Amino acid sequence: MTAYDIIAKKRDGGALSPAEIDFLVQGFVAGSVPDYQMAAWAMAVFFQGMNPRETGDLTMAMVRSGDQINLGSIPGRKVDKHSTGGVGDKTTLVLAPLVAAVGVTVAKMSGRGLGHTGGTLDKLEAIPGLRVNLTEDEFLTNVKNLNIAVVGQTGHLVPADKKLYALRDVTATVNSIPLIASSVMSKKIASGADGIVLDVKTGSGAFMKTTEAAQELAQAMVAIGAHVGRETVALVTDMDQPLGFAVGNALEVKEAIQTLQGAGPEDLTELCLTLGSEMMALAGMCEAAAQGKEILRRAIADGAAIAKFKAFVAAQGGDSKVVEDLTLLPQAKYVLPVLAEQSGFVHSIAAEEIGRCAMRLGAGRETKDSTLDLAVGVVLAKKRGDAVSAGDPLAYMHVNDSGKTSEVATMLKGAFAIGSDKPGEHALIYSRITIHGVENL
Amino acid sequence: MTAYDIIAKKRDGGALSPAEIDFLVQGFVAGSVPDYQMAAWAMAVFFQGMNPRETGDLTMAMVRSGDQINLGSIPGRKVDKHSTGGVGDKTTLVLAPLVAAVGVTVAKMSGRGLGHTGGTLDKLEAIPGLRVNLTEDEFLTNVKNLNIAVVGQTGHLVPADKKLYALRDVTATVNSIPLIASSVMSKKIASGADGIVLDVKTGSGAFMKTTEAAQELAQAMVAIGAHVGRETVALVTDMDQPLGFAVGNALEVKEAIQTLQGAGPEDLTELCLTLGSEMMALAGMCEAAAQGKEILRRAIADGAAIAKFKAFVAAQGGDSKVVEDLTLLPQAKYVLPVLAEQSGFVHSIAAEEIGRCAMRLGAGRETKDSTLDLAVGVVLAKKRGDAVSAGDPLAYMHVNDSGKTSEVATMLKGAFAIGSDKPGEHALIYSRITIHGVENL
Repeated sequence: MTAYDIIAKKRDGGALSPAEIDFLVQGFVAGSVPDYQMAAWAMAVFFQGMNPRETGDLTMAMVRSGDQINLGSIPGRKVDKHSTGGVGDKTTLVLAPLVAAVGVTVAKMSGRGLGHTGGTLDKLEAIPGLRVNLTEDEFLTNVKNLNIAVVGQTGHLVPADKKLYALRDVTATVNSIPLIASSVMSKKIASGADGIVLDVKTGSGAFMKTTEAAQELAQAMVAIGAHVGRETVALVTDMDQPLGFAVGNALEVKEAIQTLQGAGPEDLTELCLTLGSEMMALAGMCEAAAQGKEILRRAIADGAAIAKFKAFVAAQGGDSKVVEDLTLLPQAKYVLPVLAEQSGFVHSIAAEEIGRCAMRLGAGRETKDSTLDLAVGVVLAKKRGDAVSAGDPLAYMHVNDSGKTSEVATMLKGAFAIGSDKPGEHALIYSRITIHGVENL
Repeated sequence: MTAYDIIAKKRDGGALSPAEIDFLVQGFVAGSVPDYQMAAWAMAVFFQGMNPRETGDLTMAMVRSGDQINLGSIPGRKVDKHSTGGVGDKTTLVLAPLVAAVGVTVAKMSGRGLGHTGGTLDKLEAIPGLRVNLTEDEFLTNVKNLNIAVVGQTGHLVPADKKLYALRDVTATVNSIPLIASSVMSKKIASGADGIVLDVKTGSGAFMKTTEAAQELAQAMVAIGAHVGRETVALVTDMDQPLGFAVGNALEVKEAIQTLQGAGPEDLTELCLTLGSEMMALAGMCEAAAQGKEILRRAIADGAAIAKFKAFVAAQGGDSKVVEDLTLLPQAKYVLPVLAEQSGFVHSIAAEEIGRCAMRLGAGRETKDSTLDLAVGVVLAKKRGDAVSAGDPLAYMHVNDSGKTSEVATMLKGAFAIGSDKPGEHALIYSRITIHGVENL
């Protein structure tokens, strides 16, 4: 078996055997398969694809390339959630304590943000004192005692994915469904999840710009879950405008707290209830999603959700008084409105552009080595469908360095498309994908 | 401009600008574009192709990556010939002195063999004393005095092609028409040719297994020639069985000498006359190919061709007495016949397999570092269409090391397909391709 033959086979549209995939992946990690062969192979996969069996085998080969977290000491079914990433996507901040409050075990590894999308770890670190680098012992203890811990990736997890992703990133081979799907799923599987709920974003702020592409990715990931015995449900959800209003680390924490208190934005609340009910169903805690949603609504209403958030923050060293006093979160020096120049209705908000605005202000990383300003960001004042009069604020910039504000204000204004007629309704959740098929919602 | 964007553009089917192609090629040679990006790009080209303008630009970018031979001091139009490589293809050994004898300037750089195909330099070195590493002065002097010199590649010619070919060779991206075409043409152009005659082989012993693929490659190369102002004519010719009878270095020299004396195999003679007449036409020495062929036939008949060969051999330090005494060429210790086991007609001879047999006996290189035995090889006793009786020799193995003969004998026998009926005629030259189109012959 040689890497050359494997590349040629894929180039010519063949399906690779489990042994061939394993040879390539382990060889790549060990260094015996050089970058240039892996790059040629990835481009061949871009064009020829992989069937569900191959994609599953690739996923498991990557899982085997490193350590795997054993959550066996924690009773019950461990259900993880993954979002393909969006702008203002603070779902995990809400969802993790929410489902933990009703008894779902949340043993979660999250990531940092890059480019126009934020990362859960960065957002959590806006809470004074909160640590995301727990020891394995602390992590497991917190999960056992509180049902919840959220940490950065520990140990030597999925090194093949890390190395392959870095290579794909510089060889224009990121945008391949089987490669994206196996990358996401390998991390979830290595993290020890029994069940996986996927939030696949679609629209201008998402990696997948069309619902069809998002659905295809969702199906590929659900198929991997089936192939490797991890029950997986995916929702294709809207990222054509930012989720909620806040974009920026501390700003998003604040919005998440408000949502856990029952006073959050409608779209964020609805998405968290829906994803949460799917997690409950996979954990075997409810029959139908509707039933789960009702239980979660009650947990918000009776204060259980926000109480769990406080306990979680405290257990990871954070100052849980932020819940009562939001000013304990990092605050930007200036809050500057961006005003509408015309009247009408908001037809669309270019989500990726909003994310870039927040990044420019310091809320996100332009490169891996950028330092973040956790206080800054953008808070939308209007969302799609809202009426707007000339002179109304469209958004507020929370800034510390006033040098970039005029440039960002222009970008922000440009991100809003305003028309004279009221636009039609837009769905928040497009479809639900399981091994049984696609259910349009 | 970044390599990433160029890869992505080609991946998505875009046509690269001359500046983008130059950026990639010069960056690759300089090391600023790493192997893995070039490999991903080559695979994208494999799938998306390149239009004739891009292929021409790639060719010239590769030419510019290194030195270019200036043949300006030699009067007249310099016409080069290139074969895409085959088994028993000793065409250059015959053609170069043949056309030089009638006044065509032959300033030729040739290559060595690898795998199942032989190389002109190796074959020439079977002539005792002959040097292929002339200095530039010796080269130009011989061309001026004799109309002919054949050397190995000198100077820093087309380093981009050398580096890209080595990368394609290990990333399964060799088999791409625009990449093959630009590789061949860049070397011919950098070597200073004004006109180029291409012998594009097709069939079981050729790189291009089908006539359609060979024709496509021929058209791509002719288009490059037009794009860069070097008149180019291509012939698609048969390599479904070895050319002539001899396969192996000294054995092929012997057959070439016999051909120059008018006693060569019919197919080799005919091919050399046809290619030679095309070279004469490009050099402006005859109007129609038929006229050129007649002049060349006369040069063989009146001894001018073999006289030029002797002068050429002597001028490069070789022993020209080999022409009168073929036993001065390296001789193998044993000549072992391989006998037919059944009677009938030869339907086909797997040319690549014959090439491999010769390689196994030591006539070819399995890897770049193999040493050659110039004396050994295979001489066919039968060719396609010949009648054969059980017990007749099909071929002779010329060997020095008798260890591998039984294995090779079995391979040789297997390369002959013998049927009971006489097979139909097979063309030697399928088509002639110029910028004006394809002429089926």
